[in-house]
Amino acid sequence: MSRFLTPHAARLPSTVPFTGPEALERRSGTPFRARLGANESLFGPSPKAVAAMQAAAGGAWMYGDPENHDLKQALAAHHSVTPAHIAVGPGIDGLLGLICRLTLEPGTPVVTSLGAYPTFNFHVAGHGGSLTRVPYKHDHEDPEALVFAAKNTGARLVYLANPDNPMGSHHPARVIEDMVANLPDHSLLILDEAYADLAPPGTVPAIAADHPQVIRMRTFSKGYGLAGARVGYAITHPELALAFDKVRDHFGMGRVSQAGALAALRDQDWLKSVQDLTLAARTRLSAIALQNGLRPLPSATNFVTIDCGRDGDHAGKVLAELGRRGVFIRMPGIAPLDRCIRISLGDDQALDILAETLPLALKAAG
Amino acid sequence: MSRFLTPHAARLPSTVPFTGPEALERRSGTPFRARLGANESLFGPSPKAVAAMQAAAGGAWMYGDPENHDLKQALAAHHSVTPAHIAVGPGIDGLLGLICRLTLEPGTPVVTSLGAYPTFNFHVAGHGGSLTRVPYKHDHEDPEALVFAAKNTGARLVYLANPDNPMGSHHPARVIEDMVANLPDHSLLILDEAYADLAPPGTVPAIAADHPQVIRMRTFSKGYGLAGARVGYAITHPELALAFDKVRDHFGMGRVSQAGALAALRDQDWLKSVQDLTLAARTRLSAIALQNGLRPLPSATNFVTIDCGRDGDHAGKVLAELGRRGVFIRMPGIAPLDRCIRISLGDDQALDILAETLPLALKAAG
Repeated sequence: MSRFLTPHAARLPSTVPFTGPEALERRSGTPFRARLGANESLFGPSPKAVAAMQAAAGGAWMYGDPENHDLKQALAAHHSVTPAHIAVGPGIDGLLGLICRLTLEPGTPVVTSLGAYPTFNFHVAGHGGSLTRVPYKHDHEDPEALVFAAKNTGARLVYLANPDNPMGSHHPARVIEDMVANLPDHSLLILDEAYADLAPPGTVPAIAADHPQVIRMRTFSKGYGLAGARVGYAITHPELALAFDKVRDHFGMGRVSQAGALAALRDQDWLKSVQDLTLAARTRLSAIALQNGLRPLPSATNFVTIDCGRDGDHAGKVLAELGRRGVFIRMPGIAPLDRCIRISLGDDQALDILAETLPLALKAAG
Repeated sequence: MSRFLTPHAARLPSTVPFTGPEALERRSGTPFRARLGANESLFGPSPKAVAAMQAAAGGAWMYGDPENHDLKQALAAHHSVTPAHIAVGPGIDGLLGLICRLTLEPGTPVVTSLGAYPTFNFHVAGHGGSLTRVPYKHDHEDPEALVFAAKNTGARLVYLANPDNPMGSHHPARVIEDMVANLPDHSLLILDEAYADLAPPGTVPAIAADHPQVIRMRTFSKGYGLAGARVGYAITHPELALAFDKVRDHFGMGRVSQAGALAALRDQDWLKSVQDLTLAARTRLSAIALQNGLRPLPSATNFVTIDCGRDGDHAGKVLAELGRRGVFIRMPGIAPLDRCIRISLGDDQALDILAETLPLALKAAG
């Protein structure tokens, strides 16, 4: 009952940052034919990860290792850091919530981009932070403007995703390295690298794991295809990595999920094959857009953002008409980004359905 | 780095409420022969739940339904409430953290029992609540004293587990019903019913799901044997259930876990068989204690708490000597409860190992 809630909690909306495709299917009464809205990996997880989860399922009566020891060791080796530089959590979403909880008090200034990841904004609001949002520049997040705003507002947190969601754009490593060099002392950069596994060579910046002002976020949800297992991790200074132990749900990483992530990490050949499939699917999805008179933006991710050439209302109509025809996609929420729709890369079957459906949706949208 | 932490976060210890058995195994270099410390279900999950998780593993590239729709529908039918009365989260641990976040500000009074569930205390401290701890009475949590302390301190939250952990004791339904009737208006009762599925008939109180002052916590970790899948739920007034949407990690419930929990709930025959095995194992474990001159406390749970007849130092020695011989158990952390050790129910193999090891451990402990 609301009388038990804190005044801050009472003011927060009961909301969901994204409506799930299952909810949309329940409303329409029809399952989607192509699930291309949540930037999941239609290429799936490694068969070795699936096998590891299946083998672990019988042992699901046991809690997972609260120290995530084996996974942290493997991640440390993979990234050439020590296990003390790693914090494991239930997806980047979960880690973003924890970092906000650790660092924000009511009114603490935070900087992000106008139209960037809504779940980060949800957590900032949830912990009472005061959010300043900087416009995109040419469909890219604007590191210089973010640093400027950080200095101006005294921001404690600065959020940047590289590659970016929802625009699919990216900055080369040196731009991010310059940004880090110019950060004011009072700011911690949250560098969301969810899509880094699928980005072009030269995207991932060289930042010392001991850098006191950067926390990098990685996930098994995108390239590794394990969104439904909820495993993310942060790479950061050991002092900050250890701080997660102050507030995290220690037994929160399930045993099946840990087993799946570990096996996925060990199967780098599978990740390589997904990277190859990603390149081919980006090319085909971009071609489908062009064939329909739309402009695909360059993508460094597992989705292609497509400029529909008019305003948000029109893009929304295209999205709705695709949805009506069984194709689940999403779109940026804020102008001027919302002139676009965002379509996740699909396998051949899903892209066949898209190629067949997009002309009809565009015609119906007018 | 600590300079980015809030003053409150900076003061919190980086701790783990319980050391995992895997960490103990890594320290000793030897795997445990019997895992009887974490109140996991050695009888395992339903084979149908295992099969459902195995089938779902290939679909782990998809996020789980953020509304947990199917599971909430099934839970509502199971408990004869509406889905709006249910909040699903990553274990009772996760839900306890969220309810503390929703209700506590620095200094908000909270009441629990001295020696009760440490993870609740971890979350209260994490959100700055001010904890008053009421002694157990005859190895039972003391509802009258908890209500008295709630009135005295103006507590917003009162925590009671029925059946109790770590003592394994329980109150009959009417005692809890009386407690609810006597709660001061300013208090919300967190009724932790993690072990309710294994309790004697007459333990679960009749409390209207619309009661404005009670939130019941349930889990798939104990009777259903899915500790490693991280699925818990709350039954409460729809207004409070909805409040979890203000702060929860909406995509935090993984797809494989949701599938496992749903299948486990549907296999009530398996739960019944676990209840039967539980009764038999309680009897055998109690007999082992008696054969060794120790006093088993009556248990309403999946563990038996055993009075070693002296102080905490002695019980700690017994625990250490069992551990040295490959038997993982735990013990209450606070006097006078810490004269006891706490041993989870095992299958025949685990209890054979315990029966063989306990006399040696007692002899070594002196």
